[in-house]
Amino acid sequence: MSLNTFFQKLVPTDLKFFPMFESLAGLIVQASVAQQQIFEHDDPVKQKDLFKQIKDIENKSDEIVQNIFDNLDKSFVPPFDREDIHELTTSLDLVIDLINNVAQRIRQYRPKEIPSEFKDFTKMVFRGCEQINLAVFELRSIKKPNKILKACKKMLDIEKEADDLYHSTISNIFKKEKDAIELIKQKEILENLESIVDCIKDVSDALKKIILKTA
Amino acid sequence: MSLNTFFQKLVPTDLKFFPMFESLAGLIVQASVAQQQIFEHDDPVKQKDLFKQIKDIENKSDEIVQNIFDNLDKSFVPPFDREDIHELTTSLDLVIDLINNVAQRIRQYRPKEIPSEFKDFTKMVFRGCEQINLAVFELRSIKKPNKILKACKKMLDIEKEADDLYHSTISNIFKKEKDAIELIKQKEILENLESIVDCIKDVSDALKKIILKTA
Amino acid sequence: MSLNTFFQKLVPTDLKFFPMFESLAGLIVQASVAQQQIFEHDDPVKQKDLFKQIKDIENKSDEIVQNIFDNLDKSFVPPFDREDIHELTTSLDLVIDLINNVAQRIRQYRPKEIPSEFKDFTKMVFRGCEQINLAVFELRSIKKPNKILKACKKMLDIEKEADDLYHSTISNIFKKEKDAIELIKQKEILENLESIVDCIKDVSDALKKIILKTA
Repeated sequence: MSLNTFFQKLVPTDLKFFPMFESLAGLIVQASVAQQQIFEHDDPVKQKDLFKQIKDIENKSDEIVQNIFDNLDKSFVPPFDREDIHELTTSLDLVIDLINNVAQRIRQYRPKEIPSEFKDFTKMVFRGCEQINLAVFELRSIKKPNKILKACKKMLDIEKEADDLYHSTISNIFKKEKDAIELIKQKEILENLESIVDCIKDVSDALKKIILKTA
Repeated sequence: MSLNTFFQKLVPTDLKFFPMFESLAGLIVQASVAQQQIFEHDDPVKQKDLFKQIKDIENKSDEIVQNIFDNLDKSFVPPFDREDIHELTTSLDLVIDLINNVAQRIRQYRPKEIPSEFKDFTKMVFRGCEQINLAVFELRSIKKPNKILKACKKMLDIEKEADDLYHSTISNIFKKEKDAIELIKQKEILENLESIVDCIKDVSDALKKIILKTA
Repeated sequence: MSLNTFFQKLVPTDLKFFPMFESLAGLIVQASVAQQQIFEHDDPVKQKDLFKQIKDIENKSDEIVQNIFDNLDKSFVPPFDREDIHELTTSLDLVIDLINNVAQRIRQYRPKEIPSEFKDFTKMVFRGCEQINLAVFELRSIKKPNKILKACKKMLDIEKEADDLYHSTISNIFKKEKDAIELIKQKEILENLESIVDCIKDVSDALKKIILKTA
């Protein structure tokens, strides 16, 4: 037993990390719901409200992340390896940042048309965020990691599904859209949507690393 | 007291790092001045000279960075944590690389028009580089970190200001520019300008990490 | 002598890493050959076959990488520093991923024309991959690192050469291509080609780090 492990058995784990992770996971689901609504509404007033909602969520997320990092510096025994907490937190925060990026681009570019596949994409993102939420709320029971592993598996499946959808959608955009400026808009929004799904995979990787060391 | 700390008290800190950081900070200011001038001159001869100036600055920067890394391997007691020096050096070098990227793109793309906001952007970059210079010259007095912290605060303010400017400028480009190829040029130059400001924030983060551990 | 070094002298190095690296290096050469052929064939049937070949190579590469990482967790004495093996493996895998990216983009974008400079680029990539292969097969004789260092030097030369070619080619694309959508396609394929060469430089950096610590 290393000295470190020895101390970890003596000193109670700092439990205040769990509520912070859970708040972050809740914000992720909220952001993904708002994102879905953006792609379903043509009403500019409603859209403007949704852009603001997502921006507010991003600000709240930044606060929680700062809180987690501050506690990481002070806490004697965080529940998991410091570096792994850092990685998990960063990837959770990034999901929200990237959802905000998509919203910002729609606001700035005002695309004339949104390919219908984009809605399917936001549904996949939402499903991935649901799995993130499920997995994060299971972190308290990390010693029985089955539910987390199941959620991670689903995140990976969603990433593969999204990859296929990306390929067919980008091919379609180049086939159908003959207005170069509209093509630029659609292409970049699609790439930003894809980056969210990649980031959901990063969350899954971070979770699995924590399980490997802790469970 | 750890063994490491014990040795650090016995062995004098390797002071030759400071002049190297200061040279790098000086080059950053020079590069940002040359960049401003590129955006103020339409004269292709003058511009060509400025592209070369920036390329030369980039080469000098690479040499200094190599020097810092070589000394990091050899030096018994660098003034700060090795990893933090690495991060600071990399971010300082990247500022210059990114300024060179902007210059190269203008040279390669020959945009017909440069939105006036781009000049405002280069002014913000210049102000950020001035703050970097100020902060780096204060590293010798890291035990009294107030001036560095003030400079870091200003870098962050500039990053936020630049973020707002980016959003309004990209919206304007999509509103005004109807020539798709010209839009591509402007969009990418703007994105490259923005990445400089993001990197100035990274410098500020690296500086704050050093203060946290040293001051 | 540290305890770690002491054990390393007692326990035989885990030699099964070498064949795995060598398989990976072999796949890299295969992928770069297939990539060259894509740019030489207009026949869509032949091209489709090549896209599939590269995709299959990427899948095989993923398996080997997983294998290396699994062994890294289990092996008591890997032949080099764990982190360095991780870095080398990741950069080797990325070369193949990026070659696949180029193939995918050609498949999705169906560019009407391919600038002749792109073929020169794929030849440079192929030469770089040959040097990777040479260097990786020399890892068994790392104590005499001359041949690896020579190969690394050539990788760097290729990267510089490719950098010049990139600059002149992107300028030409903006001069010649007046169809914005075709320009977007060509520009992005070129950027993806360039990222392969950047990654070859990363392989060279990873190899040199291993030499520095081991030879």
